[in-house]
Amino acid sequence: MVNVGIVGGTGYAGVELLRILSLHPEVNIRLITSRSNAGTAVTEMFPNLRGQLDLNFTEPSLQAYRACDLIFFATPNTVAMSQVEAMLEAGIKVIDLAADFRLKDVELWQKWYGTTHACPDVVAKAVYGLPEMNRDQIRSAEIVANPGCYPTTVTLALLPLLSEQLIKPDSIIADCKSGVSGAGRTANVATLFCEAAESVKAYGVSGHRHLPEIQQNLRCIDEQANLIFTPHLMPMIRGIHATVYADVAQSMVDVQKIFENYYRDEPFVDVMPAGSHPETRSVKGTNTCRIAVHALPESNKYVVLSVTDNLVKGAAGQAIQNMNIMFDLAEDSGLVSPGLMP
Amino acid sequence: MVNVGIVGGTGYAGVELLRILSLHPEVNIRLITSRSNAGTAVTEMFPNLRGQLDLNFTEPSLQAYRACDLIFFATPNTVAMSQVEAMLEAGIKVIDLAADFRLKDVELWQKWYGTTHACPDVVAKAVYGLPEMNRDQIRSAEIVANPGCYPTTVTLALLPLLSEQLIKPDSIIADCKSGVSGAGRTANVATLFCEAAESVKAYGVSGHRHLPEIQQNLRCIDEQANLIFTPHLMPMIRGIHATVYADVAQSMVDVQKIFENYYRDEPFVDVMPAGSHPETRSVKGTNTCRIAVHALPESNKYVVLSVTDNLVKGAAGQAIQNMNIMFDLAEDSGLVSPGLMP
Amino acid sequence: MVNVGIVGGTGYAGVELLRILSLHPEVNIRLITSRSNAGTAVTEMFPNLRGQLDLNFTEPSLQAYRACDLIFFATPNTVAMSQVEAMLEAGIKVIDLAADFRLKDVELWQKWYGTTHACPDVVAKAVYGLPEMNRDQIRSAEIVANPGCYPTTVTLALLPLLSEQLIKPDSIIADCKSGVSGAGRTANVATLFCEAAESVKAYGVSGHRHLPEIQQNLRCIDEQANLIFTPHLMPMIRGIHATVYADVAQSMVDVQKIFENYYRDEPFVDVMPAGSHPETRSVKGTNTCRIAVHALPESNKYVVLSVTDNLVKGAAGQAIQNMNIMFDLAEDSGLVSPGLMP
Amino acid sequence: MVNVGIVGGTGYAGVELLRILSLHPEVNIRLITSRSNAGTAVTEMFPNLRGQLDLNFTEPSLQAYRACDLIFFATPNTVAMSQVEAMLEAGIKVIDLAADFRLKDVELWQKWYGTTHACPDVVAKAVYGLPEMNRDQIRSAEIVANPGCYPTTVTLALLPLLSEQLIKPDSIIADCKSGVSGAGRTANVATLFCEAAESVKAYGVSGHRHLPEIQQNLRCIDEQANLIFTPHLMPMIRGIHATVYADVAQSMVDVQKIFENYYRDEPFVDVMPAGSHPETRSVKGTNTCRIAVHALPESNKYVVLSVTDNLVKGAAGQAIQNMNIMFDLAEDSGLVSPGLMP
Repeated sequence: MVNVGIVGGTGYAGVELLRILSLHPEVNIRLITSRSNAGTAVTEMFPNLRGQLDLNFTEPSLQAYRACDLIFFATPNTVAMSQVEAMLEAGIKVIDLAADFRLKDVELWQKWYGTTHACPDVVAKAVYGLPEMNRDQIRSAEIVANPGCYPTTVTLALLPLLSEQLIKPDSIIADCKSGVSGAGRTANVATLFCEAAESVKAYGVSGHRHLPEIQQNLRCIDEQANLIFTPHLMPMIRGIHATVYADVAQSMVDVQKIFENYYRDEPFVDVMPAGSHPETRSVKGTNTCRIAVHALPESNKYVVLSVTDNLVKGAAGQAIQNMNIMFDLAEDSGLVSPGLMP
Repeated sequence: MVNVGIVGGTGYAGVELLRILSLHPEVNIRLITSRSNAGTAVTEMFPNLRGQLDLNFTEPSLQAYRACDLIFFATPNTVAMSQVEAMLEAGIKVIDLAADFRLKDVELWQKWYGTTHACPDVVAKAVYGLPEMNRDQIRSAEIVANPGCYPTTVTLALLPLLSEQLIKPDSIIADCKSGVSGAGRTANVATLFCEAAESVKAYGVSGHRHLPEIQQNLRCIDEQANLIFTPHLMPMIRGIHATVYADVAQSMVDVQKIFENYYRDEPFVDVMPAGSHPETRSVKGTNTCRIAVHALPESNKYVVLSVTDNLVKGAAGQAIQNMNIMFDLAEDSGLVSPGLMP
Repeated sequence: MVNVGIVGGTGYAGVELLRILSLHPEVNIRLITSRSNAGTAVTEMFPNLRGQLDLNFTEPSLQAYRACDLIFFATPNTVAMSQVEAMLEAGIKVIDLAADFRLKDVELWQKWYGTTHACPDVVAKAVYGLPEMNRDQIRSAEIVANPGCYPTTVTLALLPLLSEQLIKPDSIIADCKSGVSGAGRTANVATLFCEAAESVKAYGVSGHRHLPEIQQNLRCIDEQANLIFTPHLMPMIRGIHATVYADVAQSMVDVQKIFENYYRDEPFVDVMPAGSHPETRSVKGTNTCRIAVHALPESNKYVVLSVTDNLVKGAAGQAIQNMNIMFDLAEDSGLVSPGLMP
Repeated sequence: MVNVGIVGGTGYAGVELLRILSLHPEVNIRLITSRSNAGTAVTEMFPNLRGQLDLNFTEPSLQAYRACDLIFFATPNTVAMSQVEAMLEAGIKVIDLAADFRLKDVELWQKWYGTTHACPDVVAKAVYGLPEMNRDQIRSAEIVANPGCYPTTVTLALLPLLSEQLIKPDSIIADCKSGVSGAGRTANVATLFCEAAESVKAYGVSGHRHLPEIQQNLRCIDEQANLIFTPHLMPMIRGIHATVYADVAQSMVDVQKIFENYYRDEPFVDVMPAGSHPETRSVKGTNTCRIAVHALPESNKYVVLSVTDNLVKGAAGQAIQNMNIMFDLAEDSGLVSPGLMP
């Protein structure tokens, strides 16, 4: 059994970790912290967990963390970076669901996140936790930077195309549509029901923090990679749909077969039959990324449709997949379930 | 292992049976029928099951049913009644998720369902599958009539009050709010997205088929029981919220304690703390009925708030709970999971 | 032309006032105040008004108010009561969309709103602005207390029954369902999209501020009137659906005809044909209250279904209807439009 | 006064025509046909029009049409083409909201619509009713082909760029997001609430009927124009959001100023300030197309965000705008209103 703790468990990534971990056969949830809710039962805030989890929120405490083999940070950006060094020194492994350790280029990170990084040394040894790219390094990582939801969905759409050099690497457009839960569980006018329902809008067209993260991923495969990334807000709770366009590099190939081969052994990437259009709801509540690839000969482009549940493969589920890898458990342990449909 | 078949698996109850059963540790899904889709893969219609279930729809066939210990009917009303006799003779157990065997009074059934019943004899031996009322009979039943979603949610709200004679039995009002999935997966203008979204309406105020079913349940406890039942359509996919009003019989008692005691050992009824207001989303995807009871001394009434997921405790989940009881499995086998929140 | 000002225009009632008033043929909008947004264009916050309204938010100022014949307060509760006396003295009429002047019993008001009332004298002369009850007093009012959304919807459902003494006055249950916009445009976790979508819940079962307001209305007609009022939150933006139950007083009568007669000359109450079920969307964006009445002989009760748009007949529209009456304009001026359907 | 008739008024474009026309100061609605509903009141099907419109559906009849100056066809594709010749001969003007007369190339039309065109001669004289392109021809047209919702939204996003030769004409990608009402008011499993809510998907990636229509529009400006068009279904009722990408032709220019100048005198195109992100809800219920243009120097592309209400500027509203032009009324007559927000 792996003993885990969760720091900052009152947001959507936190409750999603609890939902999945409460059923994980090889995990003990030892603690979950929340300064402002210390002492109250988790189920008071999250009644969906009644009967599944008997735990109170506690104050953060290094002493308490020592009972854990692994700490998940489900905190806002910049919280983990001030706390992980002590944990790592105490031999506790860490998975940060926020962005503190995702960008290898600390200066770039500082530019996008608007503050000084507290521990650049840890950045250097953190492993970017996209198993489909970095499974081997994850296995032996002390600290894993869990990828963002957009970067996961877009990167998985592009890995086969870039790896096989099938596209012009600087021709990529990722037009992305996200449910509102990506914005978190913080009181905010813009994500009120009455502001977000019955409407669609783009945001951050001139620049979004997930852009450099996606670029870093793509440039691991092809240094020339560049993209336009346009996020849009959709009136739904969960789900990301990435529609990715790229110019064919040389002549068109059988991309369907290439995608199927590339992801043949991946437990959480599902390549749909040719001509398909994946729906975000087909992955609701699951750790699967479902992909369809279309070739458009008339305009000499490929279009890849890629969907995830932003709270699972885009956050808590992928974190647990990383935990499974780090602790040598079956990679899909606790993560097998069909999407909730309808 | 229990070998099960599903007749009529292309509706919402059918895909929900598949979702839950595909993870059930003690069940083999042997077949699923659909005349119009015979030969096609289930996952073509329901991509959420890709990777979880490798099965094609088949033609109905008694010969094929013989490989099953149990058949679930997830068909429209009046389908099961013409097929179950042959199955029962062949020693196959049956759970009908439709209404064919719910009303003991065949004439009453014929009035509400507008047709002649094909097998009144089977009605007589069918057991109404609400475990919280009839667990013992379910254990030895050959055929179970799985309760409707409204009757389940309303009956569980009233059992403790009626059993303990705490209310005037003819003073009951059940004001019920249902998600749209209760109307099924049939092409229909009234349940189009653009007709049902962003609106609320009552329907069937002058009479709804679930009224006699609820009355039958309540009259098992108190022959004088009578109620007004008003269903409303809500702009959401899953969930029923019953708001049940009743006059205090004599003097007010500590109903909170009475509810807690009454349901103490029930695995799928959760009585919330005094003063609570259950949300339907807290049971999304789960077999739990979550209840809060309020006493209103100024008007000398009790108000019970009761929520279920109409496709789980109100349909497929309760059917599987019944199967577990009938086949002497742990009653919660395959049914333990927190609600999907958010 | 009537010169109007709006105090506190950054909430939903405020923008709805602007939407309707910008098309009103006999109104000049002279000012709209917002301390925190003074100087910025209204259309920056509400782009739906681009091209319709060329106005900046300004600081509150009695001097500026003097250019107005009428001030609408679209502020939170307790704001208006500290400002209206100066206005009234200056001869400016006032319509308060909040609750400061709704309850005639100041002690009762203080109990429910948790603070001392700043100007009980003004309460005494304020007219409760439900035209269907108080049209004549509104005509000559200096200050109108604009009714709450629930009280409007429930009161209109009951006026004919109580006026004609057709029901037992203490047997009333009002089970009400509201869209989320009733909770306002304030950052708040409970009304985030991801908290309110795909779910239904009751709230305030043990007591809600609109209860004494409804009771006051009903007791104007029948001193014995009493009710249970249960509000529920629905996953939609606009709309209230009240389902009102009451015991028949003596013997059943032709309530359909009574409702039709009662509201024959009301421009904004629409009695539907017998057997109807009004949908909230049928009044989306309009000032209409649409009502259907059902008689249930088996339980000797009447059930009234009443729907409004909580931001129009339940707030801004009714305020403008009151303005029209106060300034001797056609009562429906600026208020005629079909519901936005779908 | 213009006397108008509507053929096929039971769909969403039909009821939207009625909603707007019922308030139009210079229009008499003389008839509305529906074979299957002849004799029943329009308000029985569309209660939102109660009190606004006293009209029954009638059988189609050329005799009756003669009382009209103009007929709107709000019918499915291929209906209008079999009826318009007789009308035109009778001197009645026609606006077809379906696709029968949109494509000038009849063979291309036949390929996409899968049937033989009934009156190619009428196609030749039909005017494509996008006022921002063809205002002068519309003025004298006998028959107007009202544009599709996607083509309207995408074409308006591109007109300034193509007219001023600012982009490479074959580099265009239009990633479009539509509400469900674009699919019409026909019983259909795919657009049921439970299928379309809480999900996003692309469709028709390999080809959609609106593609040749958009191409025809763009090639009126630049013969080299070509695009990829990817429609997506959003869980909302009304609204289209087009996100349009194109490569800069030579060097970047001040596109903001160019858009503002280009649309300076257009009553229904609103260019937002630089850096804006229009929301679909800001045009809900209105005839406005709201546009923001972004220059991305790092990738040398322009991104245009363009939103419309698919039932208004994308259907009924634009049809009425065309009527206003054809009958020499003020172009915005009956069409001025702010978006319904929230």
